Amino acid sequence: MLFKKQSQKKNYTMDISRLESFSDGVFAIAITLLVLEIKIPKHEELMRYGSLYHYLGDLWPSYLSWAISFMVVGVAWSNHHWMFDFIRKTNHFLNLLNIFFLMSVAFVPFTSAVLGDFVEDPVTRSAAVSAYTIGFSLPFPTGLVIIIYATYKHKLVDPRLSQKFINKQIFKVGSVTTLSIIAFILSFYFPLISLAIIVGMLILFMLPPEQPYFESQHK
Amino acid sequence: MLFKKQSQKKNYTMDISRLESFSDGVFAIAITLLVLEIKIPKHEELMRYGSLYHYLGDLWPSYLSWAISFMVVGVAWSNHHWMFDFIRKTNHFLNLLNIFFLMSVAFVPFTSAVLGDFVEDPVTRSAAVSAYTIGFSLPFPTGLVIIIYATYKHKLVDPRLSQKFINKQIFKVGSVTTLSIIAFILSFYFPLISLAIIVGMLILFMLPPEQPYFESQHK
Amino acid sequence: MLFKKQSQKKNYTMDISRLESFSDGVFAIAITLLVLEIKIPKHEELMRYGSLYHYLGDLWPSYLSWAISFMVVGVAWSNHHWMFDFIRKTNHFLNLLNIFFLMSVAFVPFTSAVLGDFVEDPVTRSAAVSAYTIGFSLPFPTGLVIIIYATYKHKLVDPRLSQKFINKQIFKVGSVTTLSIIAFILSFYFPLISLAIIVGMLILFMLPPEQPYFESQHK
Amino acid sequence: MLFKKQSQKKNYTMDISRLESFSDGVFAIAITLLVLEIKIPKHEELMRYGSLYHYLGDLWPSYLSWAISFMVVGVAWSNHHWMFDFIRKTNHFLNLLNIFFLMSVAFVPFTSAVLGDFVEDPVTRSAAVSAYTIGFSLPFPTGLVIIIYATYKHKLVDPRLSQKFINKQIFKVGSVTTLSIIAFILSFYFPLISLAIIVGMLILFMLPPEQPYFESQHK
Repeated sequence: MLFKKQSQKKNYTMDISRLESFSDGVFAIAITLLVLEIKIPKHEELMRYGSLYHYLGDLWPSYLSWAISFMVVGVAWSNHHWMFDFIRKTNHFLNLLNIFFLMSVAFVPFTSAVLGDFVEDPVTRSAAVSAYTIGFSLPFPTGLVIIIYATYKHKLVDPRLSQKFINKQIFKVGSVTTLSIIAFILSFYFPLISLAIIVGMLILFMLPPEQPYFESQHK
Repeated sequence: MLFKKQSQKKNYTMDISRLESFSDGVFAIAITLLVLEIKIPKHEELMRYGSLYHYLGDLWPSYLSWAISFMVVGVAWSNHHWMFDFIRKTNHFLNLLNIFFLMSVAFVPFTSAVLGDFVEDPVTRSAAVSAYTIGFSLPFPTGLVIIIYATYKHKLVDPRLSQKFINKQIFKVGSVTTLSIIAFILSFYFPLISLAIIVGMLILFMLPPEQPYFESQHK
Repeated sequence: MLFKKQSQKKNYTMDISRLESFSDGVFAIAITLLVLEIKIPKHEELMRYGSLYHYLGDLWPSYLSWAISFMVVGVAWSNHHWMFDFIRKTNHFLNLLNIFFLMSVAFVPFTSAVLGDFVEDPVTRSAAVSAYTIGFSLPFPTGLVIIIYATYKHKLVDPRLSQKFINKQIFKVGSVTTLSIIAFILSFYFPLISLAIIVGMLILFMLPPEQPYFESQHK
Repeated sequence: MLFKKQSQKKNYTMDISRLESFSDGVFAIAITLLVLEIKIPKHEELMRYGSLYHYLGDLWPSYLSWAISFMVVGVAWSNHHWMFDFIRKTNHFLNLLNIFFLMSVAFVPFTSAVLGDFVEDPVTRSAAVSAYTIGFSLPFPTGLVIIIYATYKHKLVDPRLSQKFINKQIFKVGSVTTLSIIAFILSFYFPLISLAIIVGMLILFMLPPEQPYFESQHK
């Protein structure tokens, strides 16, 4: 057993291993819970549909919503993974920021269910998409704050991590945040365009992220 | 493969890695399950509300209850993390105590749902807040017992861990336990004050905890 | 990256790390899901009860069932932990046996909900307790098979692990299995006695398990 | 803290540890959620059945569906484990492919519930089995793509991994994919035969998988 000598200060840096395992747990649960929102028919309901084939076929907006949300959470996990590839230490405040990030991810099953249930009906479509864009957008500003906080004065990252790389990522995540706000505003008037922007952003996020690079002059 | 020579005794000390991974799992699930308590409207119910926007807007006590409970479990995780930063070994009894701690955390989704559904109606508010304060308070006495048990004669902590640090933490967690009992009693008469105390304690817990410190004279 | 030279055989031994992390996940989810079975009242139902306090108070069989089940799964986790403290390797068949063990654990939330809902009514009590004893008993024979399989010819344990220790554990788990079958049979006639046996066994399992010991003559 | 020198390229290779822990989480949740689909009776429903024993007995298609699905997810986990025993690195695309694999696994609780609720009634049996075969089949093509992608030019596997071993596995998983498509087509006409094929495949998958072997001439 090894005990490191530590000075008596608050907000001290810690290892990220438990932050990662806790986060992986939340991502894994949020992504798997999504399927609970696809409703299994009751025997009575089935009468109205004539056959189980028709019922299961008519659930397509739920399947689609489930598939999109699965990729949303999957991509959020993948980016969290990437983020904590260059953020190498944590402290109490970053733990809290990470909890806010997970909070935004854990909200997705709710907005996803709302989308699946109400996107088909033109009367409720706009509200359903507005709700969904909120769930979709929340991780971006939180991720932005995490990156800015962790990289500020290279506090929680490798001291050699390139400042150019950091600035580029902040610019990118900032742009994506702006785009998601636009999608939210559009949802009130043109829900389908808003939905198209979300799917477009999702595809963009499937492209591989940039590998962190380092400045050689530093130790 | 390495097998350590071990004497044939009961309640022997073990590594904390599986205790941590099991606990992280429970925290992650409890925190993610919370969202299941925000009810998705049925198509029939929606008629009464006129629009999905109104329905989703009227859910605000559920959102608030969800957000508070998310931070409650998040802060409980963060403190569990902090506690097992200076508790470095476990035995069968500490495993059991930890299960009681997780039990109190796993109860939060239930009391959170009760709060979200009944805090708005003045008739049920008091009972809803009483239930919530129980869920909120339970982890404190359990955490207190864990710290006392683990630090007693430095059994499961670093032998060099400062006794002053230990006494201070026991005093702190003891005070917080007392405060949460006061919040519980107040909930029967002044539910909103009780709720304010809970939110206040939550904010207090967001401050960084104290880093463990050590006495140099010990080996 | 390290690649060990391996011979081309089937059912080869593997590291237990992923078996442990997968199992910890299942335990953590099963134990946390239990709370979902405590029903939150609907506003309409509340009318019949007069007040939320009465409703929440009348849920006591659900709380009790939840608390017992939480300890059942917790103790199952603790014993799984203990078992895989002396079982140090796995192969495909042990993976399968472990899946059967997890299956018996994952069934507990169902039988626990049945117990909580129907133990109070004398008409359904007997069936509720029978169902519960099945859920409670299943892990014992599965655990017995795991121990016998893993220790046979010291295949998956430390070669120095004492045969006396092994025989003792097989005898113990065998006795417990028998006792749980007796509790199942009794449940049809004397459900409360059956329930008392379960609680008694649970308390017994809270005692610390025996630490594995080794024979020194082996290398 | 160690920072490896890395070149500034996209789709760079990464360690598989977080991929494994995230996947283990999804498997653990999907497998444990299955039990939520076995419905606990309401007090009113029970009247129709006369006794709780009869009600619980009549749930046998749900128990059977649960047990089969538990083994399906368990075997999927076991094979994922086996696959990532010879795939030793990951990159962004493999992360995405793995998310698709997990997606197919996370869909099983839904199709399993449909099977349990509707397999008994001859009118809905065919649709229930069709749905189930889709859930059962999806992991095979995804697993096939993962193996082909990861082993192509030995990109993400040990350079010494035998090409003969790789070809054999691709042939095997390809055959299984074909067989599952046949089971799907048959489900429309002979649902019980289709179900028998699934159970047969499940038993086949319980046999131990082949251990990876290596060519000695490579370094």
